[in-house]
Parts: sequence; C-alpha cells; structure tokens
Amino acid sequence: MLLGAATLPLFTAASQPVAADYRETADRIIRAAQADSFGYERLAHLTDTFGPRLSGSDNLERAVAWIVQEMQSDGLDAVRTEPVMVPYWHRGEERLTMLEPRPHTMPLLGLGGSIGTEAGGVEAEVLVVRSFEELEQRSAEAAGKIVVYNVPFTGYGETVQYRTTGAIRAARAGAVAALVRSVTPLVMPLPHTGMMRYDTDTRKIPAAAITVEDALMLQRMQDRGQTARLRLEMQAENRPDVLSSNIVAELKGSERPDEVVVMGGHIDSWDVGTGAMDDAGGCVVSWEAVRLLKRLGLRPRRTVRVVLWANEENGLRGAAAYRDAHRDDLDNHVLAIETDGGVAKPLGFGFSGTEEALALIREIGSLLDSIGAGRITNGGGGADIGPIMRHGVPGMGLQVDGTKYFWYHHSAADTVDKIDPHAFNLNVAAMAVMAYVAADMPQRLPRTYVEPTQ
Amino acid sequence: MLLGAATLPLFTAASQPVAADYRETADRIIRAAQADSFGYERLAHLTDTFGPRLSGSDNLERAVAWIVQEMQSDGLDAVRTEPVMVPYWHRGEERLTMLEPRPHTMPLLGLGGSIGTEAGGVEAEVLVVRSFEELEQRSAEAAGKIVVYNVPFTGYGETVQYRTTGAIRAARAGAVAALVRSVTPLVMPLPHTGMMRYDTDTRKIPAAAITVEDALMLQRMQDRGQTARLRLEMQAENRPDVLSSNIVAELKGSERPDEVVVMGGHIDSWDVGTGAMDDAGGCVVSWEAVRLLKRLGLRPRRTVRVVLWANEENGLRGAAAYRDAHRDDLDNHVLAIETDGGVAKPLGFGFSGTEEALALIREIGSLLDSIGAGRITNGGGGADIGPIMRHGVPGMGLQVDGTKYFWYHHSAADTVDKIDPHAFNLNVAAMAVMAYVAADMPQRLPRTYVEPTQ
Repeated sequence: MLLGAATLPLFTAASQPVAADYRETADRIIRAAQADSFGYERLAHLTDTFGPRLSGSDNLERAVAWIVQEMQSDGLDAVRTEPVMVPYWHRGEERLTMLEPRPHTMPLLGLGGSIGTEAGGVEAEVLVVRSFEELEQRSAEAAGKIVVYNVPFTGYGETVQYRTTGAIRAARAGAVAALVRSVTPLVMPLPHTGMMRYDTDTRKIPAAAITVEDALMLQRMQDRGQTARLRLEMQAENRPDVLSSNIVAELKGSERPDEVVVMGGHIDSWDVGTGAMDDAGGCVVSWEAVRLLKRLGLRPRRTVRVVLWANEENGLRGAAAYRDAHRDDLDNHVLAIETDGGVAKPLGFGFSGTEEALALIREIGSLLDSIGAGRITNGGGGADIGPIMRHGVPGMGLQVDGTKYFWYHHSAADTVDKIDPHAFNLNVAAMAVMAYVAADMPQRLPRTYVEPTQ
Repeated sequence: MLLGAATLPLFTAASQPVAADYRETADRIIRAAQADSFGYERLAHLTDTFGPRLSGSDNLERAVAWIVQEMQSDGLDAVRTEPVMVPYWHRGEERLTMLEPRPHTMPLLGLGGSIGTEAGGVEAEVLVVRSFEELEQRSAEAAGKIVVYNVPFTGYGETVQYRTTGAIRAARAGAVAALVRSVTPLVMPLPHTGMMRYDTDTRKIPAAAITVEDALMLQRMQDRGQTARLRLEMQAENRPDVLSSNIVAELKGSERPDEVVVMGGHIDSWDVGTGAMDDAGGCVVSWEAVRLLKRLGLRPRRTVRVVLWANEENGLRGAAAYRDAHRDDLDNHVLAIETDGGVAKPLGFGFSGTEEALALIREIGSLLDSIGAGRITNGGGGADIGPIMRHGVPGMGLQVDGTKYFWYHHSAADTVDKIDPHAFNLNVAAMAVMAYVAADMPQRLPRTYVEPTQ
C-alpha cells in the first residue's frame, strides 16, 4: 500500500513513534504482570528451599539444578548452563568475644575473602578509629591491636571502602585484625558481610564485620578510658576454585534470533539470610518477565535472553565467563539489562549508551509511566553486565526505591518477607516491557561506536 | 500579713494554684535537666560496663554494687540495698537447627522459665498454627511435633499470650516443644525473649522464641506441603533462688521526712542486649531526677525516694519485697511513680487515684506542657509499684512515645544507642518535676480510702 510505503522511512529514524506503537502491548504486559503471585511464590520457594547460595556451596548448585528444571518446564527456549570456575571462600565457625571490661559475645560475620585466625584465635586490645585519617594519626598505637573502624554510614559507595580495604590499612599500621562496623544505616544488632581484599605487599590479617551497636560501644569505652580486650576466632579459608554455572534461557526472536536483549541478575549470594533481595529477586523477576512474554504469546523480533550470573558477590567470574563465552557474539547484543538493586517499587532505569539510544529508551520508559517506573536517567548498568558493556553493548540497570535496601543487604535479614509481592510484580512489568520493546522494535538500538560488520 | 493570712485557706483546697506556685521552679528543673548529658553518659557507662542484668547473674550484682557506690558519691541520703530472694533462671547453651528441607541454623532465645531439652535435644516435625483456635482445630496433628506459633503482632498485650501460655497449650495437644514467633512488629531476624509459664497439670515442654522470618518461612513451607524438621537443644534450667537487692536512695524531706514519694524502675533485665530501655533507662532517669533536685538545692517538704527494683522481668520479687519491707510504712507513701516503658520522648503520665488527686496531678502535669509531657490520663501505674498500689498508694506511670519500643524489647537490640540523649533528659525533667511538686506541695495527695491514722 502506497501510504504505508510512503511512511516507511519514518520508522527507521530515532524519532519514530515507538511509544505509540507499543502502548497497547505494554499495558497488556503491565496488567498481566499484576494478575497473580506466581513469580513471587517461585522466589519464596527458591529462597526457602535452597537457602543462601554462596559460590562453591552445595546450596547454590542445588538451586541451579532446580531453576534449570523449572525453566525447562516453563517451555523457555535454549535452557542451559554455561560453565564458570568460581572462587570458594568458606566461612567455617567464627566467634568474637569481649574479655574486658566484661564477658560479651559479639555477633560477627567474617568478610568474604578473609583469612581465618590461627587455632585459638587472636587476642588483643582494641583501637577504635572513625576514619582512615584517624588511623594514620594514631598509627603508633595500632601495633598488636585489633583495629575497629567505627565509621557511620554516609552512603554505600563512600562507607564500603572501610570494609574492602580496612584490613590492608590496619595491617600496614601493625594491627593483628580488622573489624568494621557493618555498612548499614539501620542500627540493629546484625552484622552485614561483603567482600574484602588484600594487596600483595601487605601482611594478611583476618577481617570481619561487627554490629553498629558493638562498634558504638567500643568507641564509648575507648572515649571514657576503658580498655576493651577481644578474642577473634575465625576458621575462614579460601579453598580451590570449583565449577559453577551461569544459567541461560531464552525467548527466541521471530525475525532476528541472533540479535539479543540480555537481562538478569546474579544467582549467587552471601551465605547468610537467603539472598532474596540480593539477588534471587532480580533473577526471578527477569525470569518471570520472559515467562510472562511467552505466556502472552509475545514473541519479539529479536531474542530476549535471561541470564542468571554466577559469583557476582565475590569474584564476578560469571560476568567474565559470559563475556568470554559470547565474545564472538557481542556485536549482536542489542541491549543488556541488569537488576541487582533489590526488589522494591520500581522507579525506572539508568541507561548508558548514545544520545540517540537514550532517546529511544526514554520513549520505551514512557510506557512505564502508568506504574511510576518510567524515569530513565543517563548513566547506569550493573556489575554483571559491566564486562559486555565495556565491549560496546548498551547497558542499563533497573532502579527501585532503595530506602531500606541497606537495612537488609548482605545480612541474615535478606529474606523474601522483605519483598512486597506487588512491588515484585511491578518489577516484572518494568523488565518485561523494556526487554520486549527493545527486542521487538523495528530499528536496532544504536551503539556508541561504528561496528565493523552490520 | 493580713492579706497572706486571708488567702491561706485557699492553699489547703484541691483547687489551690499548685501550678502557679511551682511554675518557676519547674521551669528551672526543666532547663537544668537539659543542660548536660551526665545522666545519659551514666546510663551508657552502666549498660556498657556491666551488660545485661538477669536475676541471679554476676552482672546484676556487680551493677548493683557500682550503683550504690555512685549514689553515695552523689551525696544522696540513706543509700542502701534491701534484700530480695530472686529466681535464677539460667539460659545455658541453646541451638535450633532446621534439618529438612535444608540445613539452617535458626536464631532462638529460650523463654524465661523454660526447662531445657534432654541432652542431644528434641527432634521433630513442625506444626505451624496462627492462633490457639487453629491449634485446637489441628490438635490431632500436634502429637510428637514441635508447635510453632506464627502469630502476627497486633499489640503486646494481645500477642504476648502465645509467649506466656503457648507451651501449656502445645503440651496439652501432645507437642514436644513450643516455638513462638517473636513478639515484635519489626521484621528483623532477631529473637525476643520474655517470661513463659507452666501450669501444674500439664507436662512441661521447652519453649523458645524464634525470628519472625523463620516463623513466616515455616508457615510457607507448611502451606506448600514441605515438611520441616527441627532439632531444638536447650540447656536452660531453673536454679535455686539467690540473694539480690532493691536499691534505695533518698532526698530526705525538710518538713515531713516520713512522707514519701517513691519513684523508679527495675534494675534487672533479660540476658540479651544490655537492658538499656528495659529498664536501666528508667532507673537512671529516676536516679538522675533525684540527683538533679539535690544539685539545684531543691529539698522538698516530703522525702523523694528512688527505688531500683529487683527481678521485675521474671518474678516481681523486688516489688513484693519492697511492699513487705515497708508494710508498716505504706500509709506514708504519698505517691509512687514508675518508668518502665522505655526512654523516648515523654508524653505524660497515667495516674490511678481519686478524682481529687487526679485533678492535682493534672495541675502538676501542666508544668510539663512546655516540653510536651503534660498529658495526664486516668489509669496507670506499673508492675513494680503494683503491690503497694494495691495497698492504697496512688500510683502512676511515665508515658513515652512507644513507636519503636517493641522493635528492641527483650532482644539484643536493647542497647543504649537506641535512646536519644535529649529524650533522656526530658524524661528526667518530667520525673523530677512530678516528684518534686508532689513531695513539696503543702497538701498531701488525697487517697482513695479513709486512712485510720492521719
């Protein structure tokens, strides 16, 4: 038809009416995502039944096997695992005891990657500091002590450096162990773990997180001139790498199956709580988004691929393995979407790509305005899609209301009850709409650089 | 002076201007209470240094000794201890392990008064119920099981019955142990302990509190048909009574020293956290109120007596011992004031006494309107002043903003950092003004009944 032919060129420009073309479908997806609690219940089943999923653990491998089976029974395409060798840090038994000024057992969580103590533990007086600067100033006092970083939460990115590099700085000052106040804004007596690291030049000392309460108490004791003496016992050890997997499943594209929109989260977690927010929730949201599209008969032109990455928490080996396994194929990765900021009310996405691509993503985002999830900010991505983004793949991260995220993060509190079922469904809607439209729209999302083949 | 003589009769009626006469002094007290953080720091020192103070524990006795010494160095009058034989429940080691459907160590706190398990523990499948009614309906399924009460928090008074009597009801249905979802509105993985009881007709079974998270998980498992199997190990035991003390200190009255306004809280606590809210805070607030009056040179006509009661948590023996020790003297107890609802922004007092007395207390209360603490409600008191109130002593309880009280109550979270120093000072102001004016005003607070001697 002539009219059709005449308007065709408009559809290849970035200004084409993507939003108008997909509004009805998006609304259908959004309605369907809220119609039941299947996905939420699947998340609860997964986290209840298999528990936390630290890289190297049996829990993780059992969870992977179950997920693959479920994805197959969902009828998803090309369900498979892709091998990843992961580090295996093992916590073992651990105990922190205050000996003076009174006996007190302190909750602790050894930090991921930390060495253990020698048998019998390490026993020493405490030096509390509020910052690295204070440690520098008082470094003469640190020798032979257990350094306690009593650093208030001023934002994860800012405060987490004490967890990641505190052992190095303390060891340089001669300390025998490093304890870090848990990186959380909530004062409840619950330690929050996470990754730490050593450097090659500095003696390795054991490192653990303590509660905010105990850090504050040790500070008060020091300030009033009381001597606090602790014994730290940790059996933590870094074991040889073991085989784990990224999990992959697809909704094959109808016209350009080789072009792929990837989305997902990480299936590993820390070894406390059940890693429901971080990141089983992101995994099941992504999985459910694909299942929902399939159920609605919405097969897009391009392939939508869900990837549940291995080992985000303590190595990012799954992210690297995915990039390596798909290296020859990354030019065909149209978009990568990660959700790893918890499952709460979705607000939108942070996108990294060209201005032209950003404009298109904003058009798609407008389809989510009805559920308040249409805000597209410039800049964003995620740890697991980082390696492929560095190869030119446009990337984005789902953004949610993070008010309470760090109440639960990396602690025993990260369990499914913290996730609201309705918010979960809205996450599914946001991911499904974004992935579907990006995979189905006539034009491919533009990239930053000129690709050698097209 | 004639004018003075003419107005004198007005001062003996209940309608006399108590508020007007004491406004200047009250304002002075209120200002002084907020001038420093001495009391708050004393509370921190006490709870940090001696820790939780369960009846029978060394911690408690060390704390008592320190407090007496400090009260003496404050120059308070008649500082002394009064003997109280207290029950000695000892927690010992305890552990709760989920064996099926996956290994999981569950945080628990044995309930005060519970027996332990036999060595090796008790191992059984779980029956989860949401109410006593559901337990009745499913009692045929309870035999040989561990009954889990998954009861949502709908208010302490309503929900706590599952903690206090859950073991009896479960044992009657043939259960081998009872686990109760912690009595708290906050979902954080922290068990909250407290008193439980047995009756004489029913087999004793061990009872413990579990986290809200684990109760919810066990419910979900049961609902989806998964079998949960637990092993409970508790070394708890009820040991022979031991000697403890009520702590008493005074500001002797200048005109009628035998007439007494009593105020205080309880110095014992559960054996987790440091019992800062419950009730070291109430103790130090009351103590600080008396110290403040002394420091300001405000010696009232009647005696103000601070009492730190023993064993409120698991026996109320201190309350009974005080009544017994002062039985011949209770007619001279003008007023009893208790603070045991946490230390947060003070709102006022709940008063139990005659209408005439209530009107007077409301007048005094109006002196606290400037700090928002002047609300006097009809009805109130406290557990530790209960026995003397039943002998006719007018009683009242300090009321504070209780929004977060049960977040921390009877758990490891009850530590001094939960208390705002400014709120602490306002509590001191409220207690000091109320006690001072009640002890100093010309007329004695009227009583409910006609006393044989006056």
